[in-house]
Amino acid sequence: MRPTSAPPPSATHPPSPSQRRWSRRARAAGSSAIRDLLAVVADRDVLSLAGGLPATGTLPTDDVVDAVTRVVTRGAGALQYGPTEGEPALRRWIAQHELDGAEPHDVIVTHGSQQALRLLVDALVDPGDTVVVERTSYVGMLQVLTPSGAQLVDVGSDEHGMVTDELELLLASGLRPTLVYLAPTFQNPTGTVLSGERRRHLGRLAAQHGFVVVDDDPYRSLGFEEPPERLRDHVPADLAVTVGSFSKSIAPGLRVGWVHAPEWLTPALVRLKQSVDLHTGSLSQRLVLDLVERPGWCAARAARQRELHSARAAALGASLGRHLGDTARFYEPRGGMFTWVRLDLAGGDTDELLPLAIEHGVAVVPGSAFDPAGRASPDARVCFATLDEADLDEAVVRLSRAVAQLRARRGG
Amino acid sequence: MRPTSAPPPSATHPPSPSQRRWSRRARAAGSSAIRDLLAVVADRDVLSLAGGLPATGTLPTDDVVDAVTRVVTRGAGALQYGPTEGEPALRRWIAQHELDGAEPHDVIVTHGSQQALRLLVDALVDPGDTVVVERTSYVGMLQVLTPSGAQLVDVGSDEHGMVTDELELLLASGLRPTLVYLAPTFQNPTGTVLSGERRRHLGRLAAQHGFVVVDDDPYRSLGFEEPPERLRDHVPADLAVTVGSFSKSIAPGLRVGWVHAPEWLTPALVRLKQSVDLHTGSLSQRLVLDLVERPGWCAARAARQRELHSARAAALGASLGRHLGDTARFYEPRGGMFTWVRLDLAGGDTDELLPLAIEHGVAVVPGSAFDPAGRASPDARVCFATLDEADLDEAVVRLSRAVAQLRARRGG
Repeated sequence: MRPTSAPPPSATHPPSPSQRRWSRRARAAGSSAIRDLLAVVADRDVLSLAGGLPATGTLPTDDVVDAVTRVVTRGAGALQYGPTEGEPALRRWIAQHELDGAEPHDVIVTHGSQQALRLLVDALVDPGDTVVVERTSYVGMLQVLTPSGAQLVDVGSDEHGMVTDELELLLASGLRPTLVYLAPTFQNPTGTVLSGERRRHLGRLAAQHGFVVVDDDPYRSLGFEEPPERLRDHVPADLAVTVGSFSKSIAPGLRVGWVHAPEWLTPALVRLKQSVDLHTGSLSQRLVLDLVERPGWCAARAARQRELHSARAAALGASLGRHLGDTARFYEPRGGMFTWVRLDLAGGDTDELLPLAIEHGVAVVPGSAFDPAGRASPDARVCFATLDEADLDEAVVRLSRAVAQLRARRGG
Repeated sequence: MRPTSAPPPSATHPPSPSQRRWSRRARAAGSSAIRDLLAVVADRDVLSLAGGLPATGTLPTDDVVDAVTRVVTRGAGALQYGPTEGEPALRRWIAQHELDGAEPHDVIVTHGSQQALRLLVDALVDPGDTVVVERTSYVGMLQVLTPSGAQLVDVGSDEHGMVTDELELLLASGLRPTLVYLAPTFQNPTGTVLSGERRRHLGRLAAQHGFVVVDDDPYRSLGFEEPPERLRDHVPADLAVTVGSFSKSIAPGLRVGWVHAPEWLTPALVRLKQSVDLHTGSLSQRLVLDLVERPGWCAARAARQRELHSARAAALGASLGRHLGDTARFYEPRGGMFTWVRLDLAGGDTDELLPLAIEHGVAVVPGSAFDPAGRASPDARVCFATLDEADLDEAVVRLSRAVAQLRARRGG
């Protein structure tokens, strides 16, 4: 009901300073042709290798129901406001079990690890500051960094992760980054693991030049092999930041992640977190704690995921070999959820490939989404965790048809 | 385990550009002496009138357990990643039941309404932009606006809410705000309701000058009387933003709020939301939907809260009269959770009062916390929702002792 004295919705009024004018930050967050294209995938009969979703059948539904019943009936705290830093018992658990006995006071529970990345950039980066990322980086962090006004400098990576020698050369020539961001363990998108030697090298460079190192580590529990030591073991304590998540080890729909930061940095993160959303959901946090505290629960779940994912990764590799042969090269997956595939597209790139692939009923994420400058490439991120073996094979068959079509168009 | 080749944590290294140097945004988020003081309250034998917590006994624990069981066993979507905009069915429910048939596409589900406020400021406000707030405003919005670099202009308010005549004078003298933010319905902290006449006046001013109006409306379900029409009924549709929450109507620990924005603004909010935390927790959203869709559930819960809160508000008023008499003046609560009390402190202010109050075993929030410029005043926000009648009375007894002590010190 709109009272007659109020202006109708179609009332003309002078252009406003804000109407249809987004802030610089919002404009920089920009649109993404790839995002728009992939958004339609959900609505259609497309086999998606593009997502980063855990296989739905593996999610611990029964345990969650049981845990919620316990935490809610144990007291109303699960439904009440909670501390901005997170539930104290969960912070203690993370400090002890994820961080080898770190100080719980320096752990902040976040609404997923994506929020931790945003808080870190808000806390540390002013417009114009230099931030170093891998040449192939997590798209969610690029979406945070771009609107921040940071100057992004990318360092190459190979199957052993970030090429720290390249970083050393940049530092020697005067580069002074505020922070260096990387995902050194079963990286999204490449699946690679930063070698021990490079971890130590990066730690020495941080000590020498005094930049903060952000280790984004959500895939640790998804290794097919023993995961390496955390980067923080090699970086001076007052420069080491670690970001983690329960999205993969338990379930993404709970949105519980965490950040461990040096003592001088945590107060800034807490104050920013308070203005962002007061605190992370109490029910989700207590639910996570109830599950991870069960003796053997984490190990059993990780073992089941390892079995499933390694079988699927192997199946994907076999399908790629069978249907694409030499046209596809990829890193042997060692964990995580993704393989990074370089396609021979006869000079074409995966930005061109994606619409064709969708026509053929399959989706991948083009490499440009993970490039700090959005440069197109013949690379694609392929997720092996979501589809079963039969669907993975059919998806690769469809992909091979799209590749053949693009190569033919290009005269390849 | 720290390998010997890595630098020890105490390694000396040159001062970093970032180490111990927060970003401008983080510095502006600042510390708060009041926050630090109130933080200790939780640890001590203090009756707190300072919080904004729903009475724990009123939280719907059994219904939540029941709802979680239903939504998790119904399908794994409750534990899976979800759309950035929110669960479609919940957006439809909000559009239909909270917004009188608005377009669901323009509703975004947020991690509590605090996040909605932050997204709005990030989407609309550049440093230097003018933002109008009430002279007594929600502290959480002030914490968002201060680090944004906005120029805050405050407009006075009385028992009928923002004095729109004062705003009109400012506009006439050239003020060109990007947005006007207010909480017109059972406001936090004052408990006041913006009159119908002023709602219409504000709508006319928005139409004339083209500024966005943000109606922050989390307390709507907590009225002792029928709530007024939403502000959006009086504001041009392309300038009207409404923010709501399930924190009061269901439970704050779930962290589910929402924002309804004009069509031109929602894409910016969605992109920012994606970089902030991907999406709001799937489990919490589905749980909320399961509860609100039960026939009569919302009305029954609101009725119980109304009964409890109105009795407590009346008890608080009686205690204030009994123990403080003419030393305390306050608005008659009409809903929400708070009363705004002006104390006669013989020239003193509530910043001075707070440490004395805590010594006497009671806490309130000083008026300065809600003042855009942090100006001290003899006002305090007093919450009537959390404590029962006996504790409310004892809390006021303790408050009266602190007031007497400050007055004596001041020679009052």
